Amino acid sequence: MAYPDQVLIKEVGPRDGLQNEKTFLPTEKKVEWIDHLSESGLSYIEITSFVNPKWIPALADCYEVATQIRRKPGVTYAALVPNMKGLEKALKADVDEVAVFMSASSTHSRKNINKTIDETLPVLEETVREARSAGKKVRGYLSTVFGCPYEGEVSPEEVLRITDRLLEMGVYEVSLGDTIGAGNPLQVESSLEEWCSRVAPEHLALHFHNTRGMALANTLVGLKAGIHTYDGALGGLGGCPYAKGASGNVATDDLVHMLHEMGIRTGVDLSSLAEAGEFIESALGNPLDSHHMEVFRASKEKDHC
Amino acid sequence: MAYPDQVLIKEVGPRDGLQNEKTFLPTEKKVEWIDHLSESGLSYIEITSFVNPKWIPALADCYEVATQIRRKPGVTYAALVPNMKGLEKALKADVDEVAVFMSASSTHSRKNINKTIDETLPVLEETVREARSAGKKVRGYLSTVFGCPYEGEVSPEEVLRITDRLLEMGVYEVSLGDTIGAGNPLQVESSLEEWCSRVAPEHLALHFHNTRGMALANTLVGLKAGIHTYDGALGGLGGCPYAKGASGNVATDDLVHMLHEMGIRTGVDLSSLAEAGEFIESALGNPLDSHHMEVFRASKEKDHC
Repeated sequence: MAYPDQVLIKEVGPRDGLQNEKTFLPTEKKVEWIDHLSESGLSYIEITSFVNPKWIPALADCYEVATQIRRKPGVTYAALVPNMKGLEKALKADVDEVAVFMSASSTHSRKNINKTIDETLPVLEETVREARSAGKKVRGYLSTVFGCPYEGEVSPEEVLRITDRLLEMGVYEVSLGDTIGAGNPLQVESSLEEWCSRVAPEHLALHFHNTRGMALANTLVGLKAGIHTYDGALGGLGGCPYAKGASGNVATDDLVHMLHEMGIRTGVDLSSLAEAGEFIESALGNPLDSHHMEVFRASKEKDHC
Repeated sequence: MAYPDQVLIKEVGPRDGLQNEKTFLPTEKKVEWIDHLSESGLSYIEITSFVNPKWIPALADCYEVATQIRRKPGVTYAALVPNMKGLEKALKADVDEVAVFMSASSTHSRKNINKTIDETLPVLEETVREARSAGKKVRGYLSTVFGCPYEGEVSPEEVLRITDRLLEMGVYEVSLGDTIGAGNPLQVESSLEEWCSRVAPEHLALHFHNTRGMALANTLVGLKAGIHTYDGALGGLGGCPYAKGASGNVATDDLVHMLHEMGIRTGVDLSSLAEAGEFIESALGNPLDSHHMEVFRASKEKDHC
């Protein structure tokens, strides 16, 4: 299959990128960062997560963030909701879209949300139904699809079963998450071959982490399989708290750079993304880990020589 | 085309990785590092460069390194030689193989070695002839094949012309170098399609830098094109002096990890490679930049918790 002409990038940095930050980033910094992102040509930004602040203190200001950002016309501002309680708050904040999430591995599911897979499905079903009654589109995240930190291999059949269930509930797209960056290109190729033969690729998105550096290689495989929606976090933010810098989401900027070099449009302006990157690295007090940001910093240092 | 069962990894860290280091790594550290590498299952190590120390002071001890390392049976110890003078010294040190190099971009060639492409060819021709008379196999490096820092695009036709000339001289393999990490998967795919239709893939190797994070994606394309030899530097050492950490060679360990996960054999033992990595990062006083080393460090920290 040929590469597509255009790809949709969904920026998850403000949620998936920030959720593991140990120091609380002040609300006004989050808002300003999201406003920067809105100016970069991104058409979809997941801005926060309406979960219990006990679970994710870093995003305790979800309502404030959602109500204080500048909503740029044409940009979809989405938020994660785990259940009805989160949904109610998200609806009150009037986000454009919500996303529900669950795991394809039962051990990961129990450790993450203290529920089995089959206990989670009805919770999401209700949440999706209510969100749709309120006029919101709902995205689904399915995590650990290429490997689980506790169970190792995850059955592609189970991934397909849950994906089908999520789509039946009325989720318009399932973002298949390689939560621990374990998927290798051969595995992604064979899994997608199976999944895409049974689910229309337009209902699937890919959410890679770059723990082992394979995210762009896996993206290439996804493109060839006909998947045209990819999640990323600017600068590779996020990931595993015990492996600083190693395990973040694929960097949106590196992803966009590769796609543009391949002649694939994203609508995103890379230099504007680098400015948004400079803002957040200064706010967090840590340099971002993407290749694009490293090259950007190096080019500025060179200019100063 | 299917992926191969086996791939040959050529470790260039002691040469391409160290040549830009600003502080001189003591000879005994280089020797000890190469001895570590020899134990990791690598079958080919480029140990140094017999160039004028004025050009590359970091490798001024080329002769000492080549004569002091422990030569493990079954491992090929190679060295770079720019010309007859370098070759003579390399022969005196009795390296197993030599490698000659030139650029596919005339501006890069003039800036790098003060010679045009057509002035370089006869120099290499003489060097290759003499090396072969002395019973040594000769490898060829062709740099900037997917882009030049001065000229931008490099003509795939010119790459093919020089590759042909190098093979005619008696070089057994041309390592096509993406010196600035500019090649994107679509470009690599279309270039290799052309090159491999006119040169047998077994005479080609790929030498990616990871400046933009695309090295593993490009490797995937190379594998599909039928190329089975890949250069790497442990931990992603090397690269551009003004962009610390950003522009090194593809990390051998990340490359080997991906290949193994895909079921492709390399003969290299990853944990032994990590130990060699720990040695060199302690000797250089800088953590290595590969994903594998980051995960390795994180797993040790976790063990200590």
